[in-house]
Amino acid sequence: MKRTLTRTIIYFFVFFLFIPLAAEEGMHLLSELHKLDLKNKGLEIEVLDLYDPNGTSLIDGIINLSGCTASFISEDGLILTNYHCAFPAIQRVTTKENDFMKDGFMAGERSKEIEAKGYTVRTIDFYKDVSQNVLRVVKKRMTHAERTKAIEKKIKKIVVETEKKYPGKRAEVAEMFKGKTYVLFVYTYLKDIRLVYAPPRSIGEFGGEEDNWMWPRHTGDFTLLRAYASPGQKSADYSPENVPYKPKKFLPVAPEGVSEGDFVFILGYPGRTYRHRTSYFLDFEEQFRMPYTVNLYGWIIETLEKMSMSDRETTIKLAPMLKGLWNSMKNYKGKLQGLKRLQLAKKRHEEERKLQEFINVDKKRAAQYGNVLKEIEILFQKERAVAEYESIMRYLNRIVDKLSVAYSAYEASIELKKPDTERKRPYMKRNYERTIKQIERGFRDFYEPADKAIFKELLTRAVNLKGDKRITPFDKMFATEAADAGKTIDAFIQDAYEKTNLGDQQFAMDLFKKSPQDLEKLDDPFVKLAVSLYPLYQEIKTAQDEREGQLDKLSAQLIDVKKQFLGSDFIPDANSTLRLTYGRIEGYSPADAVYYSPLTTIKGIVEKHNTGASHYQAPEKLLNLYEAKEFGAFKEEALDDVPVAMLYSADTTGGNSGSPVLNARGQLVGLNFDRAYEATINDYAWSHDYSRSIGVDIRFILWFLQKYSGADYLLKEMGVAK
Amino acid sequence: MKRTLTRTIIYFFVFFLFIPLAAEEGMHLLSELHKLDLKNKGLEIEVLDLYDPNGTSLIDGIINLSGCTASFISEDGLILTNYHCAFPAIQRVTTKENDFMKDGFMAGERSKEIEAKGYTVRTIDFYKDVSQNVLRVVKKRMTHAERTKAIEKKIKKIVVETEKKYPGKRAEVAEMFKGKTYVLFVYTYLKDIRLVYAPPRSIGEFGGEEDNWMWPRHTGDFTLLRAYASPGQKSADYSPENVPYKPKKFLPVAPEGVSEGDFVFILGYPGRTYRHRTSYFLDFEEQFRMPYTVNLYGWIIETLEKMSMSDRETTIKLAPMLKGLWNSMKNYKGKLQGLKRLQLAKKRHEEERKLQEFINVDKKRAAQYGNVLKEIEILFQKERAVAEYESIMRYLNRIVDKLSVAYSAYEASIELKKPDTERKRPYMKRNYERTIKQIERGFRDFYEPADKAIFKELLTRAVNLKGDKRITPFDKMFATEAADAGKTIDAFIQDAYEKTNLGDQQFAMDLFKKSPQDLEKLDDPFVKLAVSLYPLYQEIKTAQDEREGQLDKLSAQLIDVKKQFLGSDFIPDANSTLRLTYGRIEGYSPADAVYYSPLTTIKGIVEKHNTGASHYQAPEKLLNLYEAKEFGAFKEEALDDVPVAMLYSADTTGGNSGSPVLNARGQLVGLNFDRAYEATINDYAWSHDYSRSIGVDIRFILWFLQKYSGADYLLKEMGVAK
Repeated sequence: MKRTLTRTIIYFFVFFLFIPLAAEEGMHLLSELHKLDLKNKGLEIEVLDLYDPNGTSLIDGIINLSGCTASFISEDGLILTNYHCAFPAIQRVTTKENDFMKDGFMAGERSKEIEAKGYTVRTIDFYKDVSQNVLRVVKKRMTHAERTKAIEKKIKKIVVETEKKYPGKRAEVAEMFKGKTYVLFVYTYLKDIRLVYAPPRSIGEFGGEEDNWMWPRHTGDFTLLRAYASPGQKSADYSPENVPYKPKKFLPVAPEGVSEGDFVFILGYPGRTYRHRTSYFLDFEEQFRMPYTVNLYGWIIETLEKMSMSDRETTIKLAPMLKGLWNSMKNYKGKLQGLKRLQLAKKRHEEERKLQEFINVDKKRAAQYGNVLKEIEILFQKERAVAEYESIMRYLNRIVDKLSVAYSAYEASIELKKPDTERKRPYMKRNYERTIKQIERGFRDFYEPADKAIFKELLTRAVNLKGDKRITPFDKMFATEAADAGKTIDAFIQDAYEKTNLGDQQFAMDLFKKSPQDLEKLDDPFVKLAVSLYPLYQEIKTAQDEREGQLDKLSAQLIDVKKQFLGSDFIPDANSTLRLTYGRIEGYSPADAVYYSPLTTIKGIVEKHNTGASHYQAPEKLLNLYEAKEFGAFKEEALDDVPVAMLYSADTTGGNSGSPVLNARGQLVGLNFDRAYEATINDYAWSHDYSRSIGVDIRFILWFLQKYSGADYLLKEMGVAK
Repeated sequence: MKRTLTRTIIYFFVFFLFIPLAAEEGMHLLSELHKLDLKNKGLEIEVLDLYDPNGTSLIDGIINLSGCTASFISEDGLILTNYHCAFPAIQRVTTKENDFMKDGFMAGERSKEIEAKGYTVRTIDFYKDVSQNVLRVVKKRMTHAERTKAIEKKIKKIVVETEKKYPGKRAEVAEMFKGKTYVLFVYTYLKDIRLVYAPPRSIGEFGGEEDNWMWPRHTGDFTLLRAYASPGQKSADYSPENVPYKPKKFLPVAPEGVSEGDFVFILGYPGRTYRHRTSYFLDFEEQFRMPYTVNLYGWIIETLEKMSMSDRETTIKLAPMLKGLWNSMKNYKGKLQGLKRLQLAKKRHEEERKLQEFINVDKKRAAQYGNVLKEIEILFQKERAVAEYESIMRYLNRIVDKLSVAYSAYEASIELKKPDTERKRPYMKRNYERTIKQIERGFRDFYEPADKAIFKELLTRAVNLKGDKRITPFDKMFATEAADAGKTIDAFIQDAYEKTNLGDQQFAMDLFKKSPQDLEKLDDPFVKLAVSLYPLYQEIKTAQDEREGQLDKLSAQLIDVKKQFLGSDFIPDANSTLRLTYGRIEGYSPADAVYYSPLTTIKGIVEKHNTGASHYQAPEKLLNLYEAKEFGAFKEEALDDVPVAMLYSADTTGGNSGSPVLNARGQLVGLNFDRAYEATINDYAWSHDYSRSIGVDIRFILWFLQKYSGADYLLKEMGVAK
């Protein structure tokens, strides 16, 4: 321990003295890379090697995998992503007999690779700015709701037209700055994705929820998939005739790994950040949205965990939902702590005060922007007044499974009658099939006791809503006195689950072929409830559109005047489009007198092993390999061990999961999967002091594949000869 | 943060390269100091400056303060010790009107210093080996119980005779090696101790139970007391006529503090260690004693904390008990984790296997020592069989207050009839007055609902005892069926607290003047119970004496043969006698990829402030002083802050609380108050990797006194001019 420590310190010493700090805020747009002077910061290849709009470059190997990022790592379409990104696919093929969750999965040969249902792969073909085209539809006399609707419709139209022009491709229009900048992305879109390799869950999730969002980390959060295409290399649905997809570009793997202080960069699809929002937004998040969500999720988790203990089958069923809830809750808690500790809202308020002063000193500016902040404040006051009501409504048709199915069917019956570009997104022609499949998949994990308990909790919260925003159908259904309400709700729920036919998948899916009138006549408690709630949801949607339209306009103005104030441009918030971020392999100090170094080792797995909770149970075989020091070619001499996880000062957020971590030469050295707890606040602000992201070290992936699973054939496919 | 980190790393770098490691295991006896080569390890003064049996030396400034350590820091008897050591005194003088717990206390002038009731001060006059004298009483034909009794009686006799020879002094005989070595200590003994200064509890206990036994630490765990003596400088009970005591020696304070890597040493009274015990002892601790205690204390804590929330008065009453329970429970948990993680019992067993081999190879050795380990094993099997029974019995008359008072009275009535040296210690003439005072003080914090709840829990456990070791009086009193037992117990308890007169302090204390016969006739439920349990306690005592006598003899043999085996002497376990330990100011790595540096700062207090729990609420004034960077003369330049707590590789345990941390020149640089969590295992084993102790930095103490409390007069008294 001491020797290692001394060495670490020497490295650090050298690093701090001779290498300038390279990390900085930024999830950069591809079009802006040439402005970054990356070569001076450590990059050893050309910017055109990263992104070449007219040729093949690294970004052609980067994948958007159903909300995560992934990358091609062989010419035969082999894909590297996180275990947690592939987890639903692994869970879906796990049975009591073939417990791939427990034991892991290795196909061994291509014919045995299993379909990962519902997974799709997107890689960028090209993109272009369509702001002018989009904003042309906005007319001065429009209400805010009309404005929102018009923009939405125009975007859908561009998407549909583009996909018609490029058959088999997928188009998306992304909003880069609210109400200001819109970019059209055109993607290659693959639909036959298969599971190649997954480690045991005890490795893929080692440390469980306790270590999630935490450093030091010892999780082997990786999985291998493969994209398939038709024999002619066209996008195709799953078919045994399909062949491995040949990507334009795949990322070379660097089995020698990284060292502390090395320059690294990440290409990926960060989901959402909120760095340019106002103090009013931050207040809303800190005072309502996060505490409310933490409270509700906490309740659901506690309830589901109790149920989950009953038997292995229930455990498997509830696993994905619990995993998601835990993940979100801990993230929200981290953010909440960060917001409070950093007093972000207070600081933002102070910035806004200065901005307001800047606006006020100039008459013309004052006339144009003088009320922008005030109007945003009023908007958030309005939102706060209905926030709890809208939350309960949203959760009702999102997480109460039976109500959700009934509501979707009724909504579909109405939406499908509209012209395609006027429909809500899930019901557009290009999406509808996927929507239906997703609903069908929901039946597999349905667990009635959980659904009932959540329904009851939400109904109870609904009935106890204070103020004039009440859910009127419930006021009619249940006694409003809290003491009595429980009983009536119990009786209603008991009755509803007994009487409904929605437990029958065939019956449920047939509803999606019915007309609104047919559904309104149907005597099913959940369909009845969906029909009675529908007008309320429409009302909410209109009110939200109105607020959003207004906020879009105000935000655009705010950005204009902020640019004048700061005298500079700034990077748009993350919005699930491809971005580059860079930094160094480096540790940090999370608290006074504590320092985290940036590489963990297998020794750390062994130390955590068997220390109480079940998520700290490493497989026996791994312990034996460590005991025998069988590190093969993947040992880091300075640590006398195989590095497991790595820490770096790049700027990431959710959606960056599965992103490749690349070295100065553009070779894959790690697999991004998380951020440190202090960095959950990244979504609102970035700081070099604490914004650190976490990846699996490629050396651990290769070591585990080879020494634990004997998967040398996969190493060979990646071109790793060792 | 970065700058500080870099500097810390540079220091470390330099330290590791050029300075040899100086820390090692050992709570050294004063008589052995000349063997340690301390000068080569960093000490800059002479060993005779530390300990001079024929003159004045540093140890004359070291105090045993009612179980803690303390030191004189002025010629007028000013005493520095921990807040937690003085806490009961602070709690006793706290009222709703004068909330010294909340606000802290500063006398301002000597006449306003408050009596710290029950506190005594001991400083060493001299000591000498009395092993031969003690062991002379052991005869071959004695049973083990007789052996134990004989030794005990002889020790008491030596004590009484010594105190007769040196009036006003206090004598103690300490067992250095079980059944082998005994040392007589003669102490100056002062009984008028007063409270001079205490910080607010939010500083003295900053971090509360959450930070207790933890690093990084930010607790200002210090308090100032003063010893008083008669105008002629003789030991005297509290009296307004008394004057400040003039110690032979006081420790000079070093306001410049320490730096990372500095040599430090500690003089103090470490309580108990168990480093030479067998694997059978470790198994017993790991498998029974610690889990049982953690479970029981956990239950009591939960119960008392609920009660404690009701009002401020109850909070104050229950505070000392809760503090003690929390402290022990966390310590036990840490030890339990350490025992498991380090597999100490397994390793000790392996050592014993080798020792046994060494014994077996030599015929003579085999004849003499061949069965020692086996017999110790059998002894622990016997102990395990009655462990739960004896635990419950012990807790009953120790923590059920009303039963404890009744039992003490009855026991006193019997003991007081015996010759002085045959009595149990609390009833010997030299101790009896203190025993009575202690019982009287107990009345102040008595809280009936807590006493009832604990009584019920213990009775329930007693009734549910498995096996033949049962508490016979309870079998008669309560239905033995568990389901019914609860009810009967409830009824009994209700009745007992209603009928008893022990709530009346006068009545209770009068019992101590009665004869056994009078008490046996008394119709008080608790006295009746005490009388009926008395024979069982006698039975237990005899059995324990028998086991202990046997263990003493076997342990002495084990030490003999171990010395032969190892070819070296070893340091006796801690036993509340004065010891020296040394090490360096240094951090450590508690886990893979984590490094703790050895100095915390006020910045850390500010970071923890307001992060949830009430124990992280720093006083407003401290926050303001930090904001204004009012560090005065106590700033550490490298940290750009005042150091708050310090970490060092010396070897300490409970009882070392309040020990001065001294630099190479013998000046006071810190105040020991805790160990790191990984170091709770110190009691069983020491390791340079994780055995770290924690002190308050003298610079924080001086800074807080001056800047927060304006107590310049105290700094002046210590000779700190700044």
